[in-house]
Amino acid sequence: MNKPLKIAIAGLGTVGAGVIKVLSDNKDIITARSGRAIEVCAVSARDRHRDRGVSLAPFTWYDNPVDMALDDEVDVVVELIGGSDGIAKALCEKALENGKHVVTANKALIAHHGTELAKTAEAKGVSIMYEAAVAGGIPIIKALREGLAGNGVERVYGILNGTCNYMLTNMRETGRDFDVILSEAQDLGYAEADPTFDVDGIDAAHKLAILTSVAFGCEVDFDGVQTEGIRHVSPVDIEFAEELGYRIKLLGIASRQNGSVEQRVHPCMVSKKAPISQVEGVFNAVVVEGNFVDQVVLQGRGAGEGPTASAVVGDLVDVARGVKVPTFSVAADKLEKLKSAPLTGHNGSYYVRLMVVDEPGVFADVAGVLKANNVSMETIVQRNRAPGEPVPLVLTLHETSEQSMLNALNGIAALDSVVETPRMIRIEDF
Amino acid sequence: MNKPLKIAIAGLGTVGAGVIKVLSDNKDIITARSGRAIEVCAVSARDRHRDRGVSLAPFTWYDNPVDMALDDEVDVVVELIGGSDGIAKALCEKALENGKHVVTANKALIAHHGTELAKTAEAKGVSIMYEAAVAGGIPIIKALREGLAGNGVERVYGILNGTCNYMLTNMRETGRDFDVILSEAQDLGYAEADPTFDVDGIDAAHKLAILTSVAFGCEVDFDGVQTEGIRHVSPVDIEFAEELGYRIKLLGIASRQNGSVEQRVHPCMVSKKAPISQVEGVFNAVVVEGNFVDQVVLQGRGAGEGPTASAVVGDLVDVARGVKVPTFSVAADKLEKLKSAPLTGHNGSYYVRLMVVDEPGVFADVAGVLKANNVSMETIVQRNRAPGEPVPLVLTLHETSEQSMLNALNGIAALDSVVETPRMIRIEDF
Repeated sequence: MNKPLKIAIAGLGTVGAGVIKVLSDNKDIITARSGRAIEVCAVSARDRHRDRGVSLAPFTWYDNPVDMALDDEVDVVVELIGGSDGIAKALCEKALENGKHVVTANKALIAHHGTELAKTAEAKGVSIMYEAAVAGGIPIIKALREGLAGNGVERVYGILNGTCNYMLTNMRETGRDFDVILSEAQDLGYAEADPTFDVDGIDAAHKLAILTSVAFGCEVDFDGVQTEGIRHVSPVDIEFAEELGYRIKLLGIASRQNGSVEQRVHPCMVSKKAPISQVEGVFNAVVVEGNFVDQVVLQGRGAGEGPTASAVVGDLVDVARGVKVPTFSVAADKLEKLKSAPLTGHNGSYYVRLMVVDEPGVFADVAGVLKANNVSMETIVQRNRAPGEPVPLVLTLHETSEQSMLNALNGIAALDSVVETPRMIRIEDF
Repeated sequence: MNKPLKIAIAGLGTVGAGVIKVLSDNKDIITARSGRAIEVCAVSARDRHRDRGVSLAPFTWYDNPVDMALDDEVDVVVELIGGSDGIAKALCEKALENGKHVVTANKALIAHHGTELAKTAEAKGVSIMYEAAVAGGIPIIKALREGLAGNGVERVYGILNGTCNYMLTNMRETGRDFDVILSEAQDLGYAEADPTFDVDGIDAAHKLAILTSVAFGCEVDFDGVQTEGIRHVSPVDIEFAEELGYRIKLLGIASRQNGSVEQRVHPCMVSKKAPISQVEGVFNAVVVEGNFVDQVVLQGRGAGEGPTASAVVGDLVDVARGVKVPTFSVAADKLEKLKSAPLTGHNGSYYVRLMVVDEPGVFADVAGVLKANNVSMETIVQRNRAPGEPVPLVLTLHETSEQSMLNALNGIAALDSVVETPRMIRIEDF
């Protein structure tokens, strides 16, 4: 038997404790698969004495996690602190520079500094692994980077944030408002006290930026992700979506175009028949479209102690087996620097909901603005007629450029009979 | 740039030609990902002059593929001949013995001789890779062997044969008989002239035996797979399934039990709400249940030129990158030899359809036999009442042992009022 792989864990929240549990509960099979034992030798966390359901007694304790990067016994640093900068970044950089492998679940760190970290790792002949950073337990990074490596990837998209998917599913099932569902999700622990990263799409954008890099062999470009969250999605839109044959999902979508890449995170209307619209609740799913494999869909739990720890340990087994592949599928110094395609140049179909005063002529006004902007209507639905009162008027628009759509929306918003800001949701034709 | 990886392809059917196309169309991205070029240097097939849409001129031609195993230029032999024995086996053995890697799409070969081939490969320090042998383009072998390697796998199951899934979907959608759909599938090229391997479940059994080995770290045991095909599934059963909230799918299911493994391939009734029942037509899907990751589902195209070639090239990229992991996740000489659990000891729920003469007392007779065998009924549906004529009587039975169920079926078949062999389909509670 080869000598054990020694790991140091920085951050002992649920995932950190989960990693210790996986390595202990599944010790025999992990050793058999790795050809050697994987042993925790050092840990660091904010509070040494909190009860985590696992004993820390056997491990060297570090008050400052960055010092673990200097521990000669340590082969791999597992970074579970979080945050794109600060101590997490310092630890990872130092560990790599000292020739230690890094395994992390930190999507913000990789989304912001992935390219640089990869360059450092590859120059030092070690790995930085981040399967747990994207879609929790789903081995999508490995699938894209290795299993599907024969394909030119045309598009990759997915439900990348379980909190949002849980909330949208719940809103659809119960008809309740965003705010009510959010506070319930917070009580249940499905949403953070500060839900910004989740509901404003930032978390999904972090993950999408990483997927984009692996899929297209380009530098990680978080700033190129155009992001819109789910705060403005209302039960009435969800109802209309049902009626029109759609589900509303917060998706991250990356597609390669001539010399540029379009990265966007926003609520989408997706046909109820598309596999991705069947993915409900806290589940995540990622769809890869390759030029030979066609469509491959992976789904599973996108968060939580067990799934995330499973992904971390999968990476550790790779390291233990001596597997070494380019961090983002292509060597870091060969990653392309792709231009970011602006969403204004995007072509798509659109759902628009207006609140209009129910009076003669409204319809003609709206149609006039659309016509002036060269946007053509596919369907129109008006409900709950109430002369003189505001009622919803829903349009779906044929494929058009986003810029035309935005111009038309501005024109429509300026109409006297339109009493609220128009709501627009992009329709994706999967 | 490192020196190119040179490959020899044996067998130039659709998949072989597909591999040549992938390597040529995606040359740049494959080279970037692999860190070196992957070049075909030799080929062999039955007919040198058939038009395959790709030129063979640049490659060394071999009349006898086995001779490629001796070609010093060749790093990897890609075996796409098929068949569990004969020339495919001879070629793979000889290639491995000569220190060449083998990549194959041959499920029969791996199902029958996987353990021995893995031992040879690992002793020689080379790889035998077979991602294309299971579920076409879906990177399920890599997911199980690597991405999910931190988990103790409790169960793995899936739709492993696209022909059967296409036929069952088509039967459901059109209400037509098995024979009609089969001959249509043959005309469309979705089923072979001799459909035995597909419709009798043998192809799915090959794939399941391979999945079992990777999932549980045991020797490949094709003979341990208990197999039943779809020939006896009739439109009336599909209709009743719909009514009861199920879909009928041919599944391969492997689960680990104390010291043994249960492997079975047979038609199943699956809740319409389970993700796997949404997988229709020629698509395949595999579900892995791990003790930390919970459930992960992978789906995609299970056959065809592009998807299968994608899987072959994924393996080639691994070889080109120098990735080396144990063939079946655990080193071949450490694979467990697990006992095969007989299906008679299986506990499950059952759907049973009888054709009974519509006359008083039938019901009491059937109920009496069930009671005598300790099998308890969950639902009973009788339709199309026609006094004195044969009508279908459908039962679903609460969880019971398969042996009790079989005993009850024998008793029921012997009743005077039961006019056809009872049809039984296992209900899976996913």
